[in-house]
Amino acid sequence: MIGTVRRWLIGPPLPTKRMRHERLGKAQALAILSSDALSSTAYATEEILLVLVLAGAGATQLSLPLAIAISILLFIVASSYYQTVHAYPAGGGAYLVTKDNLGRMPSLVAGAALLIDYVLTVAVSISAAVAALTSAFPILYPERVLIALLMIAFITIINLRGVRETGRVFALPTYFFIAAMYLLILVGLYRVLTGNTPAPPPQEALTTTAVQQLSLFLILRAFASGCTALTGIEAIADGVPIFKPPEGHNAGKTLLVMVTILSSVFLGITFLSRHFGVLPREGETVVSQIARLVFDSSPLYYVIQFATALILFLAANTGYSDFPRLSMWMARDGFLPRQFANLGDRLVYSNGIIALGVLASTLIVLFQADTHALIPLYAVGVFISFTLSQASMVRRWWRLRVPGWHIRAFFNGVGAVSTGIVMLIIAGTKFIYGAWLVLILIPLLVRIFLAIREHYDHVAEQLTVEKRPPAPVKQHTVIVPVGDVHRGVLKAMYYAQALGGTLKPVLVDTNAEHTARVRQKWQRYFPDIELVIIPSPYRSVIGPLVEFIDDHVREEGHYVTVVIPEFVTAKWWHNFLHNQTAWALRVALLYRRNWQGRFRMLTSVPFYLAR
Amino acid sequence: MIGTVRRWLIGPPLPTKRMRHERLGKAQALAILSSDALSSTAYATEEILLVLVLAGAGATQLSLPLAIAISILLFIVASSYYQTVHAYPAGGGAYLVTKDNLGRMPSLVAGAALLIDYVLTVAVSISAAVAALTSAFPILYPERVLIALLMIAFITIINLRGVRETGRVFALPTYFFIAAMYLLILVGLYRVLTGNTPAPPPQEALTTTAVQQLSLFLILRAFASGCTALTGIEAIADGVPIFKPPEGHNAGKTLLVMVTILSSVFLGITFLSRHFGVLPREGETVVSQIARLVFDSSPLYYVIQFATALILFLAANTGYSDFPRLSMWMARDGFLPRQFANLGDRLVYSNGIIALGVLASTLIVLFQADTHALIPLYAVGVFISFTLSQASMVRRWWRLRVPGWHIRAFFNGVGAVSTGIVMLIIAGTKFIYGAWLVLILIPLLVRIFLAIREHYDHVAEQLTVEKRPPAPVKQHTVIVPVGDVHRGVLKAMYYAQALGGTLKPVLVDTNAEHTARVRQKWQRYFPDIELVIIPSPYRSVIGPLVEFIDDHVREEGHYVTVVIPEFVTAKWWHNFLHNQTAWALRVALLYRRNWQGRFRMLTSVPFYLAR
Repeated sequence: MIGTVRRWLIGPPLPTKRMRHERLGKAQALAILSSDALSSTAYATEEILLVLVLAGAGATQLSLPLAIAISILLFIVASSYYQTVHAYPAGGGAYLVTKDNLGRMPSLVAGAALLIDYVLTVAVSISAAVAALTSAFPILYPERVLIALLMIAFITIINLRGVRETGRVFALPTYFFIAAMYLLILVGLYRVLTGNTPAPPPQEALTTTAVQQLSLFLILRAFASGCTALTGIEAIADGVPIFKPPEGHNAGKTLLVMVTILSSVFLGITFLSRHFGVLPREGETVVSQIARLVFDSSPLYYVIQFATALILFLAANTGYSDFPRLSMWMARDGFLPRQFANLGDRLVYSNGIIALGVLASTLIVLFQADTHALIPLYAVGVFISFTLSQASMVRRWWRLRVPGWHIRAFFNGVGAVSTGIVMLIIAGTKFIYGAWLVLILIPLLVRIFLAIREHYDHVAEQLTVEKRPPAPVKQHTVIVPVGDVHRGVLKAMYYAQALGGTLKPVLVDTNAEHTARVRQKWQRYFPDIELVIIPSPYRSVIGPLVEFIDDHVREEGHYVTVVIPEFVTAKWWHNFLHNQTAWALRVALLYRRNWQGRFRMLTSVPFYLAR
Repeated sequence: MIGTVRRWLIGPPLPTKRMRHERLGKAQALAILSSDALSSTAYATEEILLVLVLAGAGATQLSLPLAIAISILLFIVASSYYQTVHAYPAGGGAYLVTKDNLGRMPSLVAGAALLIDYVLTVAVSISAAVAALTSAFPILYPERVLIALLMIAFITIINLRGVRETGRVFALPTYFFIAAMYLLILVGLYRVLTGNTPAPPPQEALTTTAVQQLSLFLILRAFASGCTALTGIEAIADGVPIFKPPEGHNAGKTLLVMVTILSSVFLGITFLSRHFGVLPREGETVVSQIARLVFDSSPLYYVIQFATALILFLAANTGYSDFPRLSMWMARDGFLPRQFANLGDRLVYSNGIIALGVLASTLIVLFQADTHALIPLYAVGVFISFTLSQASMVRRWWRLRVPGWHIRAFFNGVGAVSTGIVMLIIAGTKFIYGAWLVLILIPLLVRIFLAIREHYDHVAEQLTVEKRPPAPVKQHTVIVPVGDVHRGVLKAMYYAQALGGTLKPVLVDTNAEHTARVRQKWQRYFPDIELVIIPSPYRSVIGPLVEFIDDHVREEGHYVTVVIPEFVTAKWWHNFLHNQTAWALRVALLYRRNWQGRFRMLTSVPFYLAR
């Protein structure tokens, strides 16, 4: 039954030969790889305003200069990544690039930071998508956690089905969003220029009076919040292999186009919000407020909201390609359980997908699908990985010294230094608001990665055939525990006789009467084979049996096979009607750690009860 | 660690030779066997009053005539049981007596009724004991459920330890209670005779105005409630074997003494309550009110309450000898899971004790340790078993026709008819107050008993050696699933070679690269043994293996041993770092029901990881 549900949800298994890598043109690749980056324009402006408004409505004027500063940073990082995509045409994710240039520990830090951030990408994007929906349909607001969880369940299932990253599916919503945003900004600017500025919305929810002084700390905090606009721009570097050749060249061009779109939309939204005096308030996003002002409540307003929700939904979906891929790489390197490297039924890394779904759902519940509550955790990890990745590139140029390496190292150096500084700003200003959690989690994860790797190293060492080989079989004793003389035991005895070792059927004497009866029956069926009777003054069956078995392993290479007759009941509840001695014996023997264990083999002789 | 806690709670295991049956004199036997019966005087009067008061305070005058009627019934039942103890010196519980005379179905009805009633004995007695305590110390009243659960846990543990039914432990509280009750009644009567009657207590809690007409139904309902006084008198018939010989004679005499004490205490309490105008109220029992009136608040009052709580506690304890013993008998007859017939570490039927503790605790929580709420469920079962037991005796005399059988049959007949009528009264008047639950539960339990027995019969039939014997071994193939070439697999191969069948190591090809590598290694270690490669287009390991194995079982008697190399990790959490393929293969093969299954043997070759 579980099999049927599973098949219905995720479809029948796919053969390995169906595995292939589609190559995409620049336009389609842009659509696939940019949804995460572009979608952050849906909340980045609002996050800046949310901090600035603490110093009063007047302070929100600073949003535009901050947005400009962030855009400059964006171009610095992009120019740095531009070099990465050329250098790593096989995929330049921060984990791989750092491993290649800076070694194990920095790469594990990058890995930990990225894994955390991918989970946050899903949680934040879904929360923001739900916010876009509930801004348009406030009646849904109380059910936002449920809606968010359903969305995650839906994305998890489609990814388990193995959604092919086809340009066709993704191109539409991404370009739809880009078009919708440009339309919003252009109509908004037109209204500004014609002086037909709509009235600012009533300020109901959030206070506009200053609760704090406008300090440098507050400005830096607003800047740090706005830096979420940079999340997702690494996607093109990760995804270089999906471009048509020359991969590096095409990816680099696409990166520049994406950054241009991203910064223009971000600046446009920020400009309009400032000009219309829009301030963040509960229950409606800033973008929704702007759209309402620009389009009143015409259908175009709903188009904007729908486009926003859709791109955010796609952004969450990018987490579902990044997280399983990174956890696969780390599992192959032995830093995560190797199950993450198993290709599932549908040719996707199912365990990573499921883990991501569970973790993101947990965050949604803990933070009640509130984007603002999640933002302080976000971006720290991204900037750690940016910094490590750019620093790796500097190291690489230093090492390779290709022609023009100075200028290349300079660009990446500027990228590394700026993202490093921003990382410190983010960590410092958001620390008490939640970033501390990430800063504790990263070393903890690194510790776990190392422990896992250590275990695999130990196992490999113990299993290596170059080590002392296992003792060959010198002697073989076959022990058959007998509870009664019945068909199950008869079968076990026939089988045990065929194994050819020294045969020792054995009965534990817990009840004198029963023992006498079994002995008598035994005489009738196996007159030539002695039935060993073990006394059991305390009526325990398992204890005396285990001792008897271990007594037989007298030296290295003396193998003992315990042939256990085992019932398989017709209905699961029938198990409650049996003593489960076979099961208990198996568990007791398997988990008994002594040197005899190496020569103790456990054979189940199943007896299928028909009813 | 679990072992340590267990040993600390219930002590080390006891050897079987410590099992013995103590024989007791009449005085000690009385103490052991009468606590249940005598303890019901602590609540029987109150239960009568609780019903009568519905027709107004005046109606409570009827309590004395009802108590007299119940006492007469008590003597009728006792005279009937007097014959049972002579006829069944090996123990005359209703289940065994009914099975012996009326056959399977009636005995199962008696068994079901008794099992339910033993659970209720524990729940009612503990609730009443807690009520006696909280009457004296009202501060404990809000914690009554917790206190009741702790008491049950305590009794369960001392019974798991194997409390010996020594006269010494039990004699003291029982005789202490008898003495305390006689003291209360005598001082009370003295006060009545000297006209020094204390003032009736203020009627705060329960209304004294009539809410119902005094109808025949109400009187019968009061009578039915009072019949709880008869619960427990069957204990002597159940316990005949503990008397010194002549068992029947001694048990009979003890029965008469017990009934005399019981009826005199019951009548005395009822008389005093009526004379003092005591009415039931919340938070204080009727006996506690009488004791307060008779002794004011002198220490003697606390002695009465303490003695009452103690005997009720002992009464609950009798449930712990009755329930496990009856479930053991029924398990031996195949009507309950055979685990109930297993003698535990401490020479007691531990599973019955644990089941009783769990069931009684459930009732305590469901009914919030409220005696009055539990009473309507109680007594129905007792009277069903009384009736069946007496009717069995009539049938027995009819069958055996010993000298004087007419008069014996007459006495038992009177017993059967009166208890039968009372059973109908109880069922009728208490039906809507809770008795319906028991009347549904009894047939349901009988159905379950029959289903269990049917399963055991089916199993016995399938296992019988007289049936077609299992196919002897004609041919033997040994299959070794190989995932890689490592020490664990080497060991499995050495072992498999020693088994002497046709050897087939097999590798499932889920990854061409890995397969090539394993093949190469294989050539080095086993150049003479062909490694079979099974293709797996869907990357599943288990499915193709299972098919391959089943393909090898070509006819009856062709046995296949699957030698499964299995890791045993050093720490439990290491299991999360491995694929668990061995475990999955074992489960898939063991629970696969096809005819090949009969010839599929599963051998675990453990490889112990040191870390």
